[in-house]
Amino acid sequence: MNEVTEVALSTVFMSEAFGTAVLVLLGCGVVANVVLPRTKGNGADWVLISFGWGFAVFAGVYVAHASGAHLNPAVTVGMLAADKGEYAPGVAITAASTVVYLVAQFVGGMVGALVCWLAYKKHFDEAGREGVPTIDVFSTGPEIRSYGWNFVTEVIATFVLVYVILVFGQTPSELGPLAVAVLVVAIGMSLGGPTGYAINPARDLSPRIVHALLPIRGKLTSNWSYAWVPVLGPLVGGALAGVAAAVIG
Amino acid sequence: MNEVTEVALSTVFMSEAFGTAVLVLLGCGVVANVVLPRTKGNGADWVLISFGWGFAVFAGVYVAHASGAHLNPAVTVGMLAADKGEYAPGVAITAASTVVYLVAQFVGGMVGALVCWLAYKKHFDEAGREGVPTIDVFSTGPEIRSYGWNFVTEVIATFVLVYVILVFGQTPSELGPLAVAVLVVAIGMSLGGPTGYAINPARDLSPRIVHALLPIRGKLTSNWSYAWVPVLGPLVGGALAGVAAAVIG
Amino acid sequence: MNEVTEVALSTVFMSEAFGTAVLVLLGCGVVANVVLPRTKGNGADWVLISFGWGFAVFAGVYVAHASGAHLNPAVTVGMLAADKGEYAPGVAITAASTVVYLVAQFVGGMVGALVCWLAYKKHFDEAGREGVPTIDVFSTGPEIRSYGWNFVTEVIATFVLVYVILVFGQTPSELGPLAVAVLVVAIGMSLGGPTGYAINPARDLSPRIVHALLPIRGKLTSNWSYAWVPVLGPLVGGALAGVAAAVIG
Amino acid sequence: MNEVTEVALSTVFMSEAFGTAVLVLLGCGVVANVVLPRTKGNGADWVLISFGWGFAVFAGVYVAHASGAHLNPAVTVGMLAADKGEYAPGVAITAASTVVYLVAQFVGGMVGALVCWLAYKKHFDEAGREGVPTIDVFSTGPEIRSYGWNFVTEVIATFVLVYVILVFGQTPSELGPLAVAVLVVAIGMSLGGPTGYAINPARDLSPRIVHALLPIRGKLTSNWSYAWVPVLGPLVGGALAGVAAAVIG
Repeated sequence: MNEVTEVALSTVFMSEAFGTAVLVLLGCGVVANVVLPRTKGNGADWVLISFGWGFAVFAGVYVAHASGAHLNPAVTVGMLAADKGEYAPGVAITAASTVVYLVAQFVGGMVGALVCWLAYKKHFDEAGREGVPTIDVFSTGPEIRSYGWNFVTEVIATFVLVYVILVFGQTPSELGPLAVAVLVVAIGMSLGGPTGYAINPARDLSPRIVHALLPIRGKLTSNWSYAWVPVLGPLVGGALAGVAAAVIG
Repeated sequence: MNEVTEVALSTVFMSEAFGTAVLVLLGCGVVANVVLPRTKGNGADWVLISFGWGFAVFAGVYVAHASGAHLNPAVTVGMLAADKGEYAPGVAITAASTVVYLVAQFVGGMVGALVCWLAYKKHFDEAGREGVPTIDVFSTGPEIRSYGWNFVTEVIATFVLVYVILVFGQTPSELGPLAVAVLVVAIGMSLGGPTGYAINPARDLSPRIVHALLPIRGKLTSNWSYAWVPVLGPLVGGALAGVAAAVIG
Repeated sequence: MNEVTEVALSTVFMSEAFGTAVLVLLGCGVVANVVLPRTKGNGADWVLISFGWGFAVFAGVYVAHASGAHLNPAVTVGMLAADKGEYAPGVAITAASTVVYLVAQFVGGMVGALVCWLAYKKHFDEAGREGVPTIDVFSTGPEIRSYGWNFVTEVIATFVLVYVILVFGQTPSELGPLAVAVLVVAIGMSLGGPTGYAINPARDLSPRIVHALLPIRGKLTSNWSYAWVPVLGPLVGGALAGVAAAVIG
Repeated sequence: MNEVTEVALSTVFMSEAFGTAVLVLLGCGVVANVVLPRTKGNGADWVLISFGWGFAVFAGVYVAHASGAHLNPAVTVGMLAADKGEYAPGVAITAASTVVYLVAQFVGGMVGALVCWLAYKKHFDEAGREGVPTIDVFSTGPEIRSYGWNFVTEVIATFVLVYVILVFGQTPSELGPLAVAVLVVAIGMSLGGPTGYAINPARDLSPRIVHALLPIRGKLTSNWSYAWVPVLGPLVGGALAGVAAAVIG
């Protein structure tokens, strides 16, 4: 609990980047499995998507143990707003550490998206031949486009995510990373319907950048006009959750 | 265990209200995802509904740690009937605390339903345009209407819920909130078929009131003639479970 | 661990009977939800069945904490064969205790099946009107009838169940009842395909008796010619597992 | 932790062989349930496959407690590469112990595949009559054949598996075997789309050998031309993960 070991910021960087990469690799992977042509999971329903993303978080959390496994700028911003003193045991909240978390998450998100493309390379090629949009594998998009309401949905979903994470420690259990995984499954099942629940700017923006840069055959649009919603919405939701946790206790 | 800290009733109120709000937000959210038009989860089956509601409980329990996370008048009534002395560590069973729990749960249920409407606003609008009934997102209704048998189903399902919760402490495990989540998944899968398993008056009545009050476009009926079943059934089931737990041990 | 409290056999009886009742209520309930007409879960697939039965076990185990939660004659026979000295902390293995476990399990199975019928009463009536067979809700039946091979399947599946249960204690974890629940989900998903995995004589024979006795409208056959397979198969599989556990360690 | 008991290599052999047999029995079983004709789970989707394989691992891990439950040559090779000193408490890393793990895993895989065939015997017969390919039950095959990219997919998926297993101990939790089960579910959902995620040479090669040898009626091809991919890919992925874990920490 009261660890005094100071964790080097280079360790924080590696930990967050690697953990976020695994999160995004597995998370984008399950969408690839559902939407790309000729995969084993093609056409599977929202049960697969929501469990797949939740359990992707499970894996990422183990990888990022050294940095407290934020894996998400909304979580980092939420902890900053909650002002708990430390981002993780041995990692003080400072301007420098904040930047390291955020940069590492975005870098990790790019690495994960790139590796996901490699894992599904032949199916991306096939999507290009068949005219299937590929941005859905990388980044979220709303079913009914309405920037204002899409933003509201992302704020609400991320608020639930970050608030519950901030109060995890007050209920005894030994679930470890499974707790956040089940929480993410819950949010995906429940609040993922309108926008596809980015609830994490690094999970959305980094893969979108990678999608724009990669030589994906016939890749169609990267949907940049929507890109700000799954960045700002989660940041606002996370910050509000941090404030709420600080106020409520 | 033998905590002596007294928890203020204002804390109990905030805890139960906020926790029930999260429970109802996520729970009604998964139904919205399945039944409203043009969502990501539209048309998904009972697997999504039952996991979604169970994991909604998971999130709500963490939020309501300070009050023992009843989140359900049937649980409160069950604990009253079982006469365990305390509703939670530091919260004595009194007339005042009982009222606080119940009022907070109904208030929380209304907040959760309202936020769910905001999260799915554009899809509710679309439902109105297409003539899709919207009450199903908020409150339960039977597949075969038969007040007597619907009541029986709710009594049985809630009895199982509250009885198992009351005996949780007698089996060692470190699952924490996951135990009640899995239990709710089980009940939904098994006993949710006839009535949609309210098993919680606050989960059913509060959203129904919100449905009646909200300016939902083309919302159709709030189905008030059925409203007493998912209130009285769970209360009777919870009370019977409390008595059974007190008698059996 | 080394509990010296002796548990009265009347307590064992109540515990096993009540726990098995909850197990069979929830287990048969999920099948009712899938196969009976006009339920919320009608037509759902094997994912719902296998999770539903596994999580039914989860609930039953909590209810039967006082007796070690066998809930299954195959488990009791397996522990007898493994000769571990005690059926549960404070319950010695004797002829009397063995009989109490077995009788309680069969009685509990009947109670659970009866309550399941009550919970789904209107849907059983509807099944009768539509000519849908109702025995499937209560008891297992093979997809390809072949007494010999059906028997083999039940032996194999029950062997896995009982053997893994007998070695649970050798791997540290704090999953409690979730461990056996996940195990049952696994077996249902994997080995339930040919016969519907009774893997428990009380889960199969008791509901079949209840089906034969109940005044279910248009209930069709109780399929007695198959009834011995899901009784003898699990008993043989459980006994073999007990012997294997005793020999291997 | 610092167990000094030395575990005999004969114990390691029995433990790994039996555990891998249970893993492969349940894992191949779920595929049999989905792809063979006239089963209860016929036609179920990727949700069933991915949970079924993950929970198969759960059961296998309990069975193989004495040897640390590698159950997979890629895990053994990964631990060798990570050079942690011991394969399990009391089992030193030596040439002899390495051989015992690998041989036991392949033998166990064959036993599991054989028992799976027995459990689904009548359905294999039916598949032969209907011309349904049976190799899919035993071994993986790609949806789009491309040896190079299929290999890449297996390397990536196994890297995630073995790396996360190697860092499990650095995050406190009491999930025990459930952690690796959830991880395997995650990988199957996310990275199983292109090749069916062997991620374990013993899970793939041993059943393929059994398929080639068994007198399965009308069994069609054993698909030997692809057989090296799910052997070499996982071994390379596991070794890379071991090196990464040793370097990163």
